[in-house]
Amino acid sequence: MIMSIAKDYIKPHKVEEYLVLIGELIKKTREETGNIEYTLFEENDREGQFVILEYWKNEEALEAHFKAEHFIEIVPQIQKLQEKPTEVSVYHEVKWD
Amino acid sequence: MIMSIAKDYIKPHKVEEYLVLIGELIKKTREETGNIEYTLFEENDREGQFVILEYWKNEEALEAHFKAEHFIEIVPQIQKLQEKPTEVSVYHEVKWD
Repeated sequence: MIMSIAKDYIKPHKVEEYLVLIGELIKKTREETGNIEYTLFEENDREGQFVILEYWKNEEALEAHFKAEHFIEIVPQIQKLQEKPTEVSVYHEVKWD
Repeated sequence: MIMSIAKDYIKPHKVEEYLVLIGELIKKTREETGNIEYTLFEENDREGQFVILEYWKNEEALEAHFKAEHFIEIVPQIQKLQEKPTEVSVYHEVKWD
């Protein structure tokens, strides 16, 4: 399993429009086979700063997400609302024996 | 419930030392009353870049964590291993009706 954090910086007057689009993206992404979790958070006291916390079965599942029809359709619409591009980082859990 | 992401930037040759300290901090933090989750992740292909994904009952629980004995004892030791200071952000989940 991998974890990914995507940070979205949305223009404050575009937040309402963003929530409609990201809501649709969340709904469809959660139906993808390799998706485990896909949850939206907003930073406290920083309007327009969001993170999507994502868990995926493996890296291939995340790659497939970037090529999914709903991703290709919705993301360019979200990009028009951004202050700057989405920042994506990919992580693995650190475990002790 | 609130979510918090703490980003740690550790000098690559200090990672082993960091893992001992953060392992101890994780163990003790998970025993705090207001803690729900406290999990360590390392960024893929970026040695020394870690995030701690934290869920807390409320903001007061996070504030109490910063004042906990184990936090005050361990964090200054971790700071000596860092490339730059920890970055902490606090979030709330966005929910649709």
